[in-house]
Amino acid sequence: MKISYNTWAYSSFYVWVPAYTLDETIKRIAGMGYDGIEIGAAAPHAYPPHLSKDRRRRVRELLDEHGISLSSMLPAPSGGPGNNPASPNIEERRATVEHYVDLAELTAEWGGKTLIYLPGWIIFGTSRRQAWKWSREVLTEVADRIAHTGVTLVIEPTSHDTNLCMHADDAIELMEDVNKPNVKLMFDTFHALYSREVMSDYVYRMGENLKHVHISDNDRLPPGSGVGDFPSLIDALIDTGFDGYLTMETGFHRRGIEPDEDARTSIEYLRPLVESKLAEHAKASKKE
Amino acid sequence: MKISYNTWAYSSFYVWVPAYTLDETIKRIAGMGYDGIEIGAAAPHAYPPHLSKDRRRRVRELLDEHGISLSSMLPAPSGGPGNNPASPNIEERRATVEHYVDLAELTAEWGGKTLIYLPGWIIFGTSRRQAWKWSREVLTEVADRIAHTGVTLVIEPTSHDTNLCMHADDAIELMEDVNKPNVKLMFDTFHALYSREVMSDYVYRMGENLKHVHISDNDRLPPGSGVGDFPSLIDALIDTGFDGYLTMETGFHRRGIEPDEDARTSIEYLRPLVESKLAEHAKASKKE
Amino acid sequence: MKISYNTWAYSSFYVWVPAYTLDETIKRIAGMGYDGIEIGAAAPHAYPPHLSKDRRRRVRELLDEHGISLSSMLPAPSGGPGNNPASPNIEERRATVEHYVDLAELTAEWGGKTLIYLPGWIIFGTSRRQAWKWSREVLTEVADRIAHTGVTLVIEPTSHDTNLCMHADDAIELMEDVNKPNVKLMFDTFHALYSREVMSDYVYRMGENLKHVHISDNDRLPPGSGVGDFPSLIDALIDTGFDGYLTMETGFHRRGIEPDEDARTSIEYLRPLVESKLAEHAKASKKE
Amino acid sequence: MKISYNTWAYSSFYVWVPAYTLDETIKRIAGMGYDGIEIGAAAPHAYPPHLSKDRRRRVRELLDEHGISLSSMLPAPSGGPGNNPASPNIEERRATVEHYVDLAELTAEWGGKTLIYLPGWIIFGTSRRQAWKWSREVLTEVADRIAHTGVTLVIEPTSHDTNLCMHADDAIELMEDVNKPNVKLMFDTFHALYSREVMSDYVYRMGENLKHVHISDNDRLPPGSGVGDFPSLIDALIDTGFDGYLTMETGFHRRGIEPDEDARTSIEYLRPLVESKLAEHAKASKKE
Repeated sequence: MKISYNTWAYSSFYVWVPAYTLDETIKRIAGMGYDGIEIGAAAPHAYPPHLSKDRRRRVRELLDEHGISLSSMLPAPSGGPGNNPASPNIEERRATVEHYVDLAELTAEWGGKTLIYLPGWIIFGTSRRQAWKWSREVLTEVADRIAHTGVTLVIEPTSHDTNLCMHADDAIELMEDVNKPNVKLMFDTFHALYSREVMSDYVYRMGENLKHVHISDNDRLPPGSGVGDFPSLIDALIDTGFDGYLTMETGFHRRGIEPDEDARTSIEYLRPLVESKLAEHAKASKKE
Repeated sequence: MKISYNTWAYSSFYVWVPAYTLDETIKRIAGMGYDGIEIGAAAPHAYPPHLSKDRRRRVRELLDEHGISLSSMLPAPSGGPGNNPASPNIEERRATVEHYVDLAELTAEWGGKTLIYLPGWIIFGTSRRQAWKWSREVLTEVADRIAHTGVTLVIEPTSHDTNLCMHADDAIELMEDVNKPNVKLMFDTFHALYSREVMSDYVYRMGENLKHVHISDNDRLPPGSGVGDFPSLIDALIDTGFDGYLTMETGFHRRGIEPDEDARTSIEYLRPLVESKLAEHAKASKKE
Repeated sequence: MKISYNTWAYSSFYVWVPAYTLDETIKRIAGMGYDGIEIGAAAPHAYPPHLSKDRRRRVRELLDEHGISLSSMLPAPSGGPGNNPASPNIEERRATVEHYVDLAELTAEWGGKTLIYLPGWIIFGTSRRQAWKWSREVLTEVADRIAHTGVTLVIEPTSHDTNLCMHADDAIELMEDVNKPNVKLMFDTFHALYSREVMSDYVYRMGENLKHVHISDNDRLPPGSGVGDFPSLIDALIDTGFDGYLTMETGFHRRGIEPDEDARTSIEYLRPLVESKLAEHAKASKKE
Repeated sequence: MKISYNTWAYSSFYVWVPAYTLDETIKRIAGMGYDGIEIGAAAPHAYPPHLSKDRRRRVRELLDEHGISLSSMLPAPSGGPGNNPASPNIEERRATVEHYVDLAELTAEWGGKTLIYLPGWIIFGTSRRQAWKWSREVLTEVADRIAHTGVTLVIEPTSHDTNLCMHADDAIELMEDVNKPNVKLMFDTFHALYSREVMSDYVYRMGENLKHVHISDNDRLPPGSGVGDFPSLIDALIDTGFDGYLTMETGFHRRGIEPDEDARTSIEYLRPLVESKLAEHAKASKKE
C-alpha cells in the first residue's frame, strides 16, 4: 500500500489561492515522504491544452528527479468547460471525451496507470436514466480509445458533489454496464462519511475491483483529524489484498488551509497506522 | 437602477448541483421580476466553445421572449483552464485573452454591454509587480480587440478569492494603468464586507467610473440576511448618480441552497429598498 | 390542497414517550383544524394484528365524529419485524407483503385512498441490484393483491434512513419498473433537504405522478422553523396542479418535543401560506 | 466479569442502516475479542417469527464456530408491535407475553441464560398504578411460563426512553412485587447518566440481584469517550462480587456511526480497565 497526495490544495482548484507551480508542488510533496503524487488537470499545473511538448517532458523529469511516482490523474469538473459526461449539452459531452483521452495519454507519458472517471451529474430536466446512458456512452468510448495507453479508468462515486453516481453500488453498476477490462473502481472516504456510510463497507463491496482510494476525513480534513474510523479501513484493505495508492484528497475546498500542513499532518498520521496494521496482520497470519 | 441576478446558483459553478439549463434559469429569474440576468460562462449555460451558432441565436430569443435583459457576463476562473491573466504560464495567459474576446462578442450578440474583468491572482514564485504587468497586458490586449463590440470591461477587486487586485484602489490603479475608454470599474459588496471595508466607501471612491455592482451580504447571503448596511449603499449609489445594474451574486458557493429562494429573497428585499430610497431622494431634491 | 398530520409524534414510534391513544390523537389533530390524519401502523394506534373488528369500526366512527379524513397510512419499518422488502431474509419479505396487504385493507376500511410504500434498504452483503429486484417483487405482488381496495401505493424515497431508494429518480425508476396503475409517487421534504436537494425539483420531476407529500423542515422541524423554502414548494405544487395532501411528518424522532406544539406550529405556518399562494396564482391566471 | 457487545448497531434498530447479517455480525464481534454477544430480537437478525428451525440451529453453530457465547437477548420495543407490557391495548399486552416466551426459548436454544425485561411505558390516559399492574401481570406470566428454560429475566430501568420503570428502585420494587426466582435485575449506565445518577449507586443498591449490566457512556458513546466514571463502576462491581456480563449497548441510535469502530473502541477501553482493576483488587486482598 503506497501513499500519495493530490495536488488540488497547491493548485487553483477549488479555491484560487494559495497556488503553487507544479515544480514547487512536486518538490514539497516528495520532500514530505510521499510515494506518489496525484496530479489534477487544473491550472496552473496540468491543463493539457496549456502544456507544450517540452513542458510535458520536463514534468516527467521532475518526478524522476524527486523520486516520486505519478499515482494517478483526474479532471477538474465544473467551472467553465464542465466536463460533465451526463450533460444534456452534446458539445460538452464530446469535449469531455476528448479531455479524458488527453488525460489518459498524459498519465501514461508521466508513468502513471490510473485515471479517475467522474460520472457526472444530472441537470434539472434530464432523467436519471438518460444521464446514466450518456455517462455510460462517454465512459465506453473513452475506455476504447485509451486501450493502447495501459491506463485504467477508476470510477469514483461522489455523494457530496453530484446526484448520479453517489454510492459504492452506483459505481459498481456503472462498471458492470460498461464491462471493459480497463474500467475499475475507486472511492473517496470523504464522500462515504458525508453520506453517513461505513468506509470499510465500500472496501468489501468493491473487493478486487477496488484499485484506488481517496483518503480524507469528514469535511475534507486530514485523516485522523475528524470522525473517520481509519483503523477499520486499513484492516479491511489489508484483508481484501488492496495494493493500490491511498491518496489524500484534502485541504483544497476553502480559504485558510495551509497546504503543507495538510499534507504533512496526513502522512504523519497515515504512515505509522498502515505500518502497524501491516505488522499486526503479518503476525496474525503467522500464528494461523 | 436596475436589478439583475447572476446565474452561478443555477449552473455548475462552484457547486455542481443543483444545476438548471439556461432556458429554465432565464424563465425563473424573469418570472421573479428581475430586470436583468448576468450570465456566467460556465457549463451547462454559456461556455463559448460549447455554443453552436443556432444555440447562440436561441438564447437571444429566450431573453427577448421573457422580457429580460443581459445585464452582464463574466468568466468562471479556476477549475481546469484557470483563466488567470496573471499566471506564469504563457499558454494560460494567451487562452485567457481569447476567452475574454469570445465573451465580449457573446455579450454583444445577446444585447449586453458589460463584461467583468477578473485581474487574476499571484502564483507562489511570481512577484506582485510581475503578476500586475501580466494582468495589465492581458487587459490592454482584450480592450483593444473588443473595441468594435461596444462592450465595456469592468474590473472587479476580489479580496476573498485572490491576492492581486483586492480592494477599490487596486482596481482603480489597474484602470488607470491600462487607460482605455472601454475599461471601467465595478465592485462586489461581499468582497468589501469580507475585508471589513465599508461598502459605500467603494461607491464614492470609484465615482463615475463605477459601472456595475455585485450585491451580496456577508458569506454570499442574500442582501438583508447578514450584516451589510444596504440602505447606506443605496444612498451612496443614488448620491453619485449610479445607473447600472445591481446584480446579486449569491447562493452558489455551497450545497444546500435553493436557488429560487435565494433569488426571490434577494429581490423581495432589494426592490422595495431601492424604490423607497429613490422616492426619499426625489422628495429631498424637491424640497431643496 | 388539503393539510394532514402524521401520528408518529403521538405514538411510540420512534421515541416511546410521550404516547397517546389513537382516540386522543384524532381528537387533538382534528381540533387544530387539520383536514386529514395520516395514521402510522404502530403501537398503540394501529398495528393490524392488535385491532379487533370492533376496534376497526370504532376508529372509523371516531374519524367521522371528528370530521377528519384519513389522508393516508404507512408502516413502521425497522424495530422487530423490520418490514424491509429488500431484506435478504425471505421470511421478512413475505411478512412485509402481508403487512402491506393488511394496511391497504385497513386504509380502505377507514375511508383512505393512499398507502405509502417504503422500498427498504440494503443489508451488507446484498448488491443494490438484488435489493432492488426484491423490493420490486414485493411491490408488484402487493399492487396486484390490493387492486380491489382502490388504494394507491405511493413510493417514498428516503435518503436519511435508507440506501436503496433515496432520491426522486430512484422512486420514479421503481414506479416505471413495476408499471402498475395503482403505484404512484410521493416525497418527503425532510429527505430532500437532508440530501441538500431542492424541494421544488422533486415536484417538477415527479409531475402528475406525485400523489402525496410529506412536509417537514430540516431536522424534522415544523415547516417554517428551519431552512426549507416552502413558498417555492407551494408555487411548484400549484404550478403542476397537485391536489393531494400535504402531510406533516414531524416531531417524532427525539425526546423533548411536545406533539401538540409541533402540530399547531405546523398548521399555523402552512395554512396561511397555501391560501395566500393560491390567491396569488388565481390573480395571476385572471390577468393572463 | 465477561465482556459482550449488543447487536443493535449492526441491525436495523433504531437506525435502519448500516445493517449487517447476523453471520457477519457474529464474525466481527468475535474477531474483536468479545467473550459474548447480546442479540436483539430485531430484523434482520433474530425476530422469532422470521426464524426457521434450520436457521435457529445454524445460528447456534455460528456462535460455537466463532467461540463466542450468547450473553443475553432482548426485545425491540416501539415500532409496529410495540411490545409494551403496560399498554392499555390488551392485544398488545398478550402479544408481548408471547414474544417474551419466544425469546426465552430462543435464548435457551442458543445457550444463553439471560433475557432482558423492559417494563414498558405509560400511554397518556393510563395511571402509573394501572400501568404498573399490567406490567407486573405480564412479567409474572412470562416468569412462570419460561421457568422450564432456565433463563433469568432481568428488569431494566430506562429513564431515557420511558416513564414507568426509570430508576434502580423502580426495578427493585417490580422484582419484589413479582417475587419469582427467575426475575432479577440489571441496569444500563447510559440511563443512569441520563438521569444524572451515580452508576456505582446502582451496583450497591441492586447488590446480589444485579445479574447483567449495559455499558455505555453518556449519549450512548463508547465507554471512556464521555463523562462516565467507569473506574468507580468497575470497583463497585468487583466489590459486590458481580460475575455477569458487561455488555456494550452503544452506537445504534443515529446515522454516522461506524459499528466496528464503536465495538473496537469500547473493548479497547474496557478490557484493560477491568483487568487492571481485578489485579489491583487481587493485590489488595492479598495484603489484607
